[in-house]
Amino acid sequence: MRLRCPMCGRQYDGPVQRCECGEPVEFERLTGEPYIGKSVWERFWDFWPVKPELGLSLGEGDTPLIRSKLGEELGIKLYLKNETVNPTWSFKDRGTFLAMSYALKAGYRAVGTVSTGNMAASVSAYASRFGLKVRILVSESASDEKLRAVSVYGGEVIRVHGDYGRLYFESLNLGEKLGIYFMNSDNPFRIEGYKGIAFEIAEEISPDYVLIPTSSGGLFRGIAKGFIELHESGLIDTVPTLIAIQAEGCPPICKAFREGKTKIERFQSPKTIAKAIANPYPPSGNAVLMLMRDFSWKCMSVFDEEILEAQRKLADEGLFVQPASATGIAALEKLDLPGGTKVVSILTGSGLKTLKTSPKGEIRECPLEELKNCLR
Amino acid sequence: MRLRCPMCGRQYDGPVQRCECGEPVEFERLTGEPYIGKSVWERFWDFWPVKPELGLSLGEGDTPLIRSKLGEELGIKLYLKNETVNPTWSFKDRGTFLAMSYALKAGYRAVGTVSTGNMAASVSAYASRFGLKVRILVSESASDEKLRAVSVYGGEVIRVHGDYGRLYFESLNLGEKLGIYFMNSDNPFRIEGYKGIAFEIAEEISPDYVLIPTSSGGLFRGIAKGFIELHESGLIDTVPTLIAIQAEGCPPICKAFREGKTKIERFQSPKTIAKAIANPYPPSGNAVLMLMRDFSWKCMSVFDEEILEAQRKLADEGLFVQPASATGIAALEKLDLPGGTKVVSILTGSGLKTLKTSPKGEIRECPLEELKNCLR
Repeated sequence: MRLRCPMCGRQYDGPVQRCECGEPVEFERLTGEPYIGKSVWERFWDFWPVKPELGLSLGEGDTPLIRSKLGEELGIKLYLKNETVNPTWSFKDRGTFLAMSYALKAGYRAVGTVSTGNMAASVSAYASRFGLKVRILVSESASDEKLRAVSVYGGEVIRVHGDYGRLYFESLNLGEKLGIYFMNSDNPFRIEGYKGIAFEIAEEISPDYVLIPTSSGGLFRGIAKGFIELHESGLIDTVPTLIAIQAEGCPPICKAFREGKTKIERFQSPKTIAKAIANPYPPSGNAVLMLMRDFSWKCMSVFDEEILEAQRKLADEGLFVQPASATGIAALEKLDLPGGTKVVSILTGSGLKTLKTSPKGEIRECPLEELKNCLR
Repeated sequence: MRLRCPMCGRQYDGPVQRCECGEPVEFERLTGEPYIGKSVWERFWDFWPVKPELGLSLGEGDTPLIRSKLGEELGIKLYLKNETVNPTWSFKDRGTFLAMSYALKAGYRAVGTVSTGNMAASVSAYASRFGLKVRILVSESASDEKLRAVSVYGGEVIRVHGDYGRLYFESLNLGEKLGIYFMNSDNPFRIEGYKGIAFEIAEEISPDYVLIPTSSGGLFRGIAKGFIELHESGLIDTVPTLIAIQAEGCPPICKAFREGKTKIERFQSPKTIAKAIANPYPPSGNAVLMLMRDFSWKCMSVFDEEILEAQRKLADEGLFVQPASATGIAALEKLDLPGGTKVVSILTGSGLKTLKTSPKGEIRECPLEELKNCLR
């Protein structure tokens, strides 16, 4: 188990989560060959830094790649990677499963995370599945209703009163002292789990672009590492162009990118409908910026109205996603891609999780006797 | 395209939905062999009465079969078929996709269904995907909130004031006149789509029992037909014992079964937390009863408290299902199965759809400064 800091280069042999310099560490790049198998875990067996606990899998990953007609008017070939059909209905399950496999193997009896949404539900569910105790730390603003889909799995939910930004780092420190393995948004195993998205895409097509809703930066780094490892293994010819998408109401990575900075700054007073990607101070922000420089990748931000419009367009294709998941489609028109370009947009989580803010259609009233007329 | 009535034996060459005798018709049994393919539609290509429109698939089916520890204390081998990870988060998508493939091929421009829950969302989503107009007929008691996950896909939602039971048959009659293809709960193509659940189970294990939450009877008939066709094709040695599970608060099929009757009677004043299986007069009820007689299968009903307890147990395994989906687990203890028995329970739909009635865990409050103590 060898980790290094992509920013300062320091190396670690143990399972640390962050470098002394404050940046996230990551596993050295793995190479290998694909096998035949039912799950992505089996087919890309060489590429995981810890043995996946297949007997405890909930069937995360192996999500559909769907051809979308939304690319047609732009003359591009658009595909949607539907992560809303994971066991807790978001991509987080891939990372959670791998991090949980490590926690179990390392002998931890308790795990935790800092989240109010998709990740909280995911960690809560897998902790129950793995038979581990769990502490879910949520912000004081988290509503009881939102926490219902988290507490249902039986984990301990703790509403922490104080600076939510500090909580991320505080949880890692305290977790280490107390023997609780915190798997926060850019935990190194989590990043590894997200590689599966790249692997599955590459099994089906060779995209030119991949659009990734970006908050902490963990998902972006995971998909990037997946494609890079496939390339270094000689399994794909080129690494696609990755584009991080943020909401205009909270775009700390895009802001630093546009200003040519190497470090993000905390974004003041975030305000967007895309709550799942509204991290004002993304812990992997600097690492994402470096990847963008190294590979000439891009960052784009989109307005809430554009997000809502994209959410509606996706629903018109039969895919109901949460606002954050629609940002890729919202960015599509602005990208001005050449005809025939192959683009994948990642749909990160289910719209059922944000039902209250979802577009609402009209409901007509009709007496049964009048049904024939109503149906015409 | 050849259909017959399983009750009276009448045969039809056209695409009728119900027999003159009032019972549902079904496609003649298909036999064939399996192929290599990514989707269940491709692998069991011989077994569909209409060509699946693969280009418009949303990735329905091919759901995980999960080994459950809930069987351990009973000494049985329990597997959970997780249908909550379908595109609209219920098993309905399998049937909807196949029925929609037919509607498109047959030249219909509009489709419809009668439902307030899983099926309404599913038909709404696939109609959008297939580019067809849609009319969703819902009961007058359907709340605006519940319809949100339906109307988001853009279809026309009509709240019909009058006898909801009559609406099922009325919609079929009017649909035929107006050129709207209604794919209600036991539409013949729908039944065919559900066969995929049996096919996928048989690819992985040979179960002794399959527990099926049962409302209209469509899902039960589909899974039954799937196993029977596999058996007639020589692909499995024995057909498993299927058990229909109903809620004690609305068990019209179980009631008739217990009383040795061949016809169900309308159940008066249904009252159960398992709304998704609370059909008081199941259109496929008599057909299910006949299957039970022919194969010595069974019907079991469970109380709401048992359902809630089972829902909690499933959440403790990382699976958050709606109450109706937990009925199989609720029935498990009463079944008194011999040790080593292999049992599959079908988890029909996501718990996110019934968040309001889901078990609620405790939420603790903690100031950031006290976090260390709170985490202990």
